[in-house]
Amino acid sequence: MTTPERRVGRATYEELLRLSLERGFFFPSAEIYNEAPAGFWEYGPTGLLMRNNFAREWRRRIVRKDDMLEIDGSVILPRIVFEASGHLSSLVDPIVQCTKCGTRIRADKYISEKTGLQIDERLSPEEFQSLISKYDLHCPKCGGDFGKPTKFNMMFRVGVGAEDADSYLRPETAQSIFVDFARLSKTMRIKLPKGIAQLGRSFRNEIAPRQALIRLRELLQAEVEVFFNPAAKFDPGRFEKIKEVRLNILAQNSGSSQSKSQTASEAVLLFGGMEIISYYFALLQEFYEACGFPKEKTRFRELSAADRAFYTTSAFDFEVETSIGWLELVACNYRTDYDLKNHSKFSKKDLQVVDGENGKVLPHVIELSLGVDRSLFSLLDLYFYHEQDRDVLRLQPNIAPYLAAIFPLISKGEIESKAISLYENLKLEDFQTFYDDSGNIGRRYRRMDEIGTPYCITVDHQSLEDDTVTLRERDSMGQTRIKISEIPEKLRTLRDQRNEPEVQYNR
Amino acid sequence: MTTPERRVGRATYEELLRLSLERGFFFPSAEIYNEAPAGFWEYGPTGLLMRNNFAREWRRRIVRKDDMLEIDGSVILPRIVFEASGHLSSLVDPIVQCTKCGTRIRADKYISEKTGLQIDERLSPEEFQSLISKYDLHCPKCGGDFGKPTKFNMMFRVGVGAEDADSYLRPETAQSIFVDFARLSKTMRIKLPKGIAQLGRSFRNEIAPRQALIRLRELLQAEVEVFFNPAAKFDPGRFEKIKEVRLNILAQNSGSSQSKSQTASEAVLLFGGMEIISYYFALLQEFYEACGFPKEKTRFRELSAADRAFYTTSAFDFEVETSIGWLELVACNYRTDYDLKNHSKFSKKDLQVVDGENGKVLPHVIELSLGVDRSLFSLLDLYFYHEQDRDVLRLQPNIAPYLAAIFPLISKGEIESKAISLYENLKLEDFQTFYDDSGNIGRRYRRMDEIGTPYCITVDHQSLEDDTVTLRERDSMGQTRIKISEIPEKLRTLRDQRNEPEVQYNR
Repeated sequence: MTTPERRVGRATYEELLRLSLERGFFFPSAEIYNEAPAGFWEYGPTGLLMRNNFAREWRRRIVRKDDMLEIDGSVILPRIVFEASGHLSSLVDPIVQCTKCGTRIRADKYISEKTGLQIDERLSPEEFQSLISKYDLHCPKCGGDFGKPTKFNMMFRVGVGAEDADSYLRPETAQSIFVDFARLSKTMRIKLPKGIAQLGRSFRNEIAPRQALIRLRELLQAEVEVFFNPAAKFDPGRFEKIKEVRLNILAQNSGSSQSKSQTASEAVLLFGGMEIISYYFALLQEFYEACGFPKEKTRFRELSAADRAFYTTSAFDFEVETSIGWLELVACNYRTDYDLKNHSKFSKKDLQVVDGENGKVLPHVIELSLGVDRSLFSLLDLYFYHEQDRDVLRLQPNIAPYLAAIFPLISKGEIESKAISLYENLKLEDFQTFYDDSGNIGRRYRRMDEIGTPYCITVDHQSLEDDTVTLRERDSMGQTRIKISEIPEKLRTLRDQRNEPEVQYNR
Repeated sequence: MTTPERRVGRATYEELLRLSLERGFFFPSAEIYNEAPAGFWEYGPTGLLMRNNFAREWRRRIVRKDDMLEIDGSVILPRIVFEASGHLSSLVDPIVQCTKCGTRIRADKYISEKTGLQIDERLSPEEFQSLISKYDLHCPKCGGDFGKPTKFNMMFRVGVGAEDADSYLRPETAQSIFVDFARLSKTMRIKLPKGIAQLGRSFRNEIAPRQALIRLRELLQAEVEVFFNPAAKFDPGRFEKIKEVRLNILAQNSGSSQSKSQTASEAVLLFGGMEIISYYFALLQEFYEACGFPKEKTRFRELSAADRAFYTTSAFDFEVETSIGWLELVACNYRTDYDLKNHSKFSKKDLQVVDGENGKVLPHVIELSLGVDRSLFSLLDLYFYHEQDRDVLRLQPNIAPYLAAIFPLISKGEIESKAISLYENLKLEDFQTFYDDSGNIGRRYRRMDEIGTPYCITVDHQSLEDDTVTLRERDSMGQTRIKISEIPEKLRTLRDQRNEPEVQYNR
């Protein structure tokens, strides 16, 4: 019965992309135009529902759980914000331009590609110049000579008002939080430590955007900046709650390429004794597991001084192992008082706050900078699977775009009206459901399997007699009969009770 | 007991602004910097919670109710999109610049202000020139002569990539929907009529941004574009459901400045016989009423040909009466096939779809372009009220930032731990709640009244004996005792059951 040429196993990157394009997850922006530049993607209907579910879990398990404040700031910010933050001088890529055909490319990437050497992107223009001379490198397109290497700032400039005032699209949502901190600390009765969160867009003028949602020019971040007094002890009651959470940590000085599983309590030593870091790493770990990221596929990788962003003194990347290798999902940075100090200096405002009996303090900051697009891409990668006779996206019910589909066995008469009435009732209860009455039931199941719908409900002849329907489960394909009146409660339970991922995800 | 100088009645615009700034609703962007330009505002924690509630109702009562597809597109789009849409040539303001001091102002507004004449913003530069000469107008700042009037495009330009490719921040979310239509119609099994929705940011480089959330340079839109076949009859079953919904309509040729209440069925005549327009106006009307906009404070005002946007042949503004006059909340436009036709021409792609037995058709579009920021501002205006001895924001429970606050009568011992445990449980059930243990209970009530929290729950000595708490209602200030175990169900019922606004809003 099965087509013999069919490959069983996890999907390739190309197959994931096809799923995304053809089933409404995401697709290139303005794609009807050849002129549309790379690095801009749209969320389609299924992708957006999945993203909304992911955001709901983030709010539930990080923002609300930790009593953080969430804000939403403007994406256009005046030049002075980025003078203060350092992004104007430091968020730069080294580039060279061909003097003959005008092609511009990234100097570090090109030199590294041609020579096989590891090239630090932070070398000076002069150092790039001598490497280009030394290895006699020329334009890859026309063979022409390169001009002088320059620094290319990755922020998009925007001119505001009739006076064309210098402004930029923010390259991280974090800066909105730092410039709003004075207002929030004055009006929101903040007690340290306090997390301020934001889910929003950031923009980076990448020279070479790549791989769909992996490196975008317009990206979605869910960032948390936790303001705290570095001289104060972290609340033992809060630490107690997470101290047994296990984290996989790949430390710089471990002498191994394998991460080591440690409890949050044990890991404190790796964080310079800072319990607050362990606490937020544990929250992050639990959030990702609740979305279906298996712990054994994730790790916190410590960055070397050379790999860290310019504003951080200690940094770990939270990574997931995908079919295209380990992928950074969250940059966990200890930003110290770097940002508040600089904004205080440039704005000439005192940004200190009173920390109870400890008096006035300029808070330090721990950041969890989460890439939403990459996280969603990784979930598709972990859960899209070819079985012998179907493709199935085994997303957890709390993440899947649609929680349930409603099918009338035949699309007429009482069966149809009963199915529509069930569908309308479930919509009123805020369940995201899908109605499908076209093709045979088997085909409808396949369509739902492919976009990850965990439950399909069919209204049939028996439904007219006893008010029951079949409830079909995606992964086991098992069917049970259930009373229509019990469906809302049943769906709620199935969604909120976490699946055990052991048997489901792609290894 | 009351302070005699206290004014009872609705709040003024200045008082609304103070509430917004001091209680975390919204505040200017990057306000610690004097350099920050006008027209950019941030949502604070309470404003964002309120906005999320408003968005949830929009999804529930428009998007999901009508089985629309929702997408989320990039805000940066290439130049050709706006060549096709007409925004490059038509989204312009007339400006003049002083030759002496360089001040730039809007020509139409300034001439109208100085002469008392009605000036059409679409006059040609030559016509502005002759008006300036005729009335001998000079720079309001220095008295200098004006240079030649010019057209100022309101889109923000952005250069993409090392090649600095011409792109723009979208001035309406609608264009993402039009350029994505081909992909969606091909992959999402769309049947006409079909609504495609999007909630996202748009950007307009206003010369003179004003009044907080009323005219922003960075704004939030919730747009719906309904694609339909103008030759097909609208589904009678769907129309039947809304035909008795009453709309207040101010038609162009009515010869009156008062709107007239009509049923959706009666109103069809005003829409050139198009039932589909009546249907979507009725959905919109019901959505706004569900958020607490009293029907008698709203109207659909027909625009004259001179007032319509360049892409529309028939247009109504859905307006609300606020303390600063009638305010446009939603632009309801009949865009015909204007956008798809132009994108088809510029992209050389066939954007027609098959409409069942009617064959291939280039769909027409009805648009509901909703301003989220203005809608929220209007709600504050409608519901913030000074009573004799308190300020109270009487928002409905489905819109209020926090549904309930939890207070321990004293913040220690068993009372505190019981209150915390109740708070944690309500958070797990996804209720947005607030915990407050500082100051006496009366003060805590006042703080919650001011930000619109409809219910306050106090854990006291009796709670330790019988597991009951007091539930205090914001508007009546009445208190009842309720079992802790019954709270989640009670709060859910109170939130989902609509209040009758008659007694509450500001007249």
